[in-house]
Amino acid sequence: MIDYLRKVAREIDELIRNDPFPESVRPEYLRSAVRDYPGRGGKRIRPALLIWSCAMLGGSEEAALYPAAAAEVFHNWTLVHDDIIDRDVSRRGAPTCHVTLAEEMKQFPLDDEARERSGRDFAILAGDLQQGWANDLLLRSVEHGVPPRVVLALSRKLQKLANAALITGEALDVEFSLRPITELSASQIREMLYLKTGALLRFCAEAGAMIALNTDSAEPEEVKILGEFAAAAGIAFQLRDDYLGLFGDYSSLGKPLGADLREGKATILLLTTLQMASGEDKAVLTDLIGRAEYSPTDLDTVRRIMHDSGATAMIDAETAQLAERARNLLREFPDNIYRQCLIDLINFLINRER
Amino acid sequence: MIDYLRKVAREIDELIRNDPFPESVRPEYLRSAVRDYPGRGGKRIRPALLIWSCAMLGGSEEAALYPAAAAEVFHNWTLVHDDIIDRDVSRRGAPTCHVTLAEEMKQFPLDDEARERSGRDFAILAGDLQQGWANDLLLRSVEHGVPPRVVLALSRKLQKLANAALITGEALDVEFSLRPITELSASQIREMLYLKTGALLRFCAEAGAMIALNTDSAEPEEVKILGEFAAAAGIAFQLRDDYLGLFGDYSSLGKPLGADLREGKATILLLTTLQMASGEDKAVLTDLIGRAEYSPTDLDTVRRIMHDSGATAMIDAETAQLAERARNLLREFPDNIYRQCLIDLINFLINRER
Repeated sequence: MIDYLRKVAREIDELIRNDPFPESVRPEYLRSAVRDYPGRGGKRIRPALLIWSCAMLGGSEEAALYPAAAAEVFHNWTLVHDDIIDRDVSRRGAPTCHVTLAEEMKQFPLDDEARERSGRDFAILAGDLQQGWANDLLLRSVEHGVPPRVVLALSRKLQKLANAALITGEALDVEFSLRPITELSASQIREMLYLKTGALLRFCAEAGAMIALNTDSAEPEEVKILGEFAAAAGIAFQLRDDYLGLFGDYSSLGKPLGADLREGKATILLLTTLQMASGEDKAVLTDLIGRAEYSPTDLDTVRRIMHDSGATAMIDAETAQLAERARNLLREFPDNIYRQCLIDLINFLINRER
Repeated sequence: MIDYLRKVAREIDELIRNDPFPESVRPEYLRSAVRDYPGRGGKRIRPALLIWSCAMLGGSEEAALYPAAAAEVFHNWTLVHDDIIDRDVSRRGAPTCHVTLAEEMKQFPLDDEARERSGRDFAILAGDLQQGWANDLLLRSVEHGVPPRVVLALSRKLQKLANAALITGEALDVEFSLRPITELSASQIREMLYLKTGALLRFCAEAGAMIALNTDSAEPEEVKILGEFAAAAGIAFQLRDDYLGLFGDYSSLGKPLGADLREGKATILLLTTLQMASGEDKAVLTDLIGRAEYSPTDLDTVRRIMHDSGATAMIDAETAQLAERARNLLREFPDNIYRQCLIDLINFLINRER
């Protein structure tokens, strides 16, 4: 699977690097910003999901390539705006888009605050342009083997799942961060995660199936099964993410352990622990939420409470169940190398250590 | 023409008000924000341009309606992000999107700064959602009489002219505001204005023609002529805007007279004056740029210098020439009521007092 994933990444990297869409953008630093995140590489899980879903059903990998690149660029523009909203300074080991652009502003006579603001303003526009780029890539798949009616159906699906659903998920995430953690339920978080992460994965799987079946309808069984598969895999992926945020390997993670806890971010793991912990442990944990810093001892305490309460075991079980469900859904399809790649991808995502 | 314009506005108002796209958006205040600007009415010049271009060539007004609404919603999302960038507080007599959303944040325990920031964050997302809404409206025109191949061609044109060109125009506008006015030329401003305003108008005119001709090609003479017509009309419209910013009627304008001057905004009028004014007048004018406030005497001085230098006469002549060129391009088409509406629209836009 890893070799196949690398192949997808190479093809997507090359397509994105050479794509003409950003060429007309000016000023030059904005054009660079538009190319920045999409060109940073990464695992390219969304493209792989789309291409393999298509290929598993006998569709052409070539036809799936532009829609796959569209999903990846779409994902990346949402990261640009997310990073502005979260005021994050680094992404995949390099400065975030708005930080890079603020640096570019040094060519103008601005004070620090104005420089930061202008960097943010241009980053808003960079994300806006990338949204257009993603749409354009998908539309241009008509020149690469996807019939017009299918392209139209996929473009509409992109507006529904990648625009409306995903951004609603992001908005709920922002709102949840403004509300006391005690007001939130695990099911609200689960829904938010489905919208924020699962919906775009669902788009990828369904789009791959529709290209393979040469249909503009989302009704065929294959499309529905692959959609459910992607939604289940997406939640499992997120649960693993939460877990690694506290139990992972610090050196290989992009952000410090406990970052979610410091931000008072309502993860399912945290909410489940608060629900299940004994009175005393609950008080200790509640007290630890939202601190500016955590000592190794603090983090050990949090981990112990999560463990003792039974929350980690419960989340582990849920993750395993979701992964099992995702794999079982795939068993409805004929056994071939792409089905195996999709199964391996699930295992890879939920067993990863970073 | 005014009656026809009102009819377009009514139809667009109704379509936008009842359109289902924003329904799935949450939280509820974000959904309201998504519907806000597009529902505020306004002259609906872009939809009129699209519908009349189509009808003038014998196309169906009904088929042009969804693309027209798409252009209007597209225009509105760019205003939402523009208003964030320009830190404007009012738009069409009501609070801007980010100000309204900051007000909504009072339901959360936030200090003033955090409230303002969260309002801005949600406004970024509101604009992002509206961009998807605009795309979705255009894609759905396939259900209202526009063939799939034409819808695809229009969607690609929207990414090129409304996304890439328009946002590049906005970015250049932001950059120009960071540079000393003396570094800028009128031709740079002219190009920026074409990108920021003319490109979307060009989309409207060309899209109307393509729907009427039932073509996915931008090559037919009619498409090209209407595109040039819209570009000329767009610049004329902007020149009039600059003029009214200083010579208009304060009470009927959305912003105070001299706002451009206070912001040191490089308008063609200002740059032309600086080029043409005598040494002494040029020094006086340069000194007046970027002040926090202007007395009526200050503004009279600015107006006198603009007049004496010959700049206003020159801009007036250019505006009239562009309008004449736009009208002449229309004379290539058969004389009918829609051609007359387009001619009247030009006259209306360049003779308006606000």
